[in-house]
Amino acid sequence: MTEKEYMKTALEEARLAFSQDEVPIGAVIVRNGEILARGHNLRETTHSGIWHAEMKVIDEACRKLGTWHLDDCDLYVTLEPCPMCAGACIQSRIRNVYFGAYDPKGGSVATVQRMFRKKAYNHHPSSHGGILKEECAAILKEYFKSKRKNK
Amino acid sequence: MTEKEYMKTALEEARLAFSQDEVPIGAVIVRNGEILARGHNLRETTHSGIWHAEMKVIDEACRKLGTWHLDDCDLYVTLEPCPMCAGACIQSRIRNVYFGAYDPKGGSVATVQRMFRKKAYNHHPSSHGGILKEECAAILKEYFKSKRKNK
Repeated sequence: MTEKEYMKTALEEARLAFSQDEVPIGAVIVRNGEILARGHNLRETTHSGIWHAEMKVIDEACRKLGTWHLDDCDLYVTLEPCPMCAGACIQSRIRNVYFGAYDPKGGSVATVQRMFRKKAYNHHPSSHGGILKEECAAILKEYFKSKRKNK
Repeated sequence: MTEKEYMKTALEEARLAFSQDEVPIGAVIVRNGEILARGHNLRETTHSGIWHAEMKVIDEACRKLGTWHLDDCDLYVTLEPCPMCAGACIQSRIRNVYFGAYDPKGGSVATVQRMFRKKAYNHHPSSHGGILKEECAAILKEYFKSKRKNK
């Protein structure tokens, strides 16, 4: 599978989030060419601010592998990670972070800050932004438009 | 209870972590003068890099209150939060963050970066560092010393 194909799977997860009235962001973790974990934002469902898509898949991947070291894992996520999720990529030693749309409000890989480039931190994932960014941004736009309509 | 007394409870949690062979960091969340959640680092037990002490208590507090908005909650933690945990404080709208020891390697509230002061993020907790910092640093030092001995 190519980078775009993995991002399409993350987009499927974003659509699932939309159908559950969650902000539509999806993620997958890939290891040795296989999807190890897939998930989406669950903040409203769980009532807990920590359950962004990235946190779900990182937690699931760690539990599946039985280790908090995800050195040989790549993360694909439809929106640029927030500081919590970028920090979780550092903590869990993710190798590559591929994201779709850029986030001017909270994006902490390329936009608000470049967290992975801070030398003091003990791990520095590589990052690749803008993969299927139109599709990844469109579903978010559609979601927020539907929320405004229903108000 | 005073700030130091809440931090003592966080230190009790750090001691529990030590007894479970986890890096000894503890945290509590306080709301209206009461301890709403208490917990400690569980990275080894869960095999998952996301379960720092702060994440456990934020998740527990959100579930108890049935909302991801912790606007009227304060976090006490024995070590300066890493970028993931500082980001989780922003995401969950924590009001005040009180921490013990400063962390030159990953501290993201005052040391490596001052994350809460970045204007682009949509919430800016207040922070207060150095509360019982000697005790909070001593237990970490003792833990890493014991690990080196046992190697």
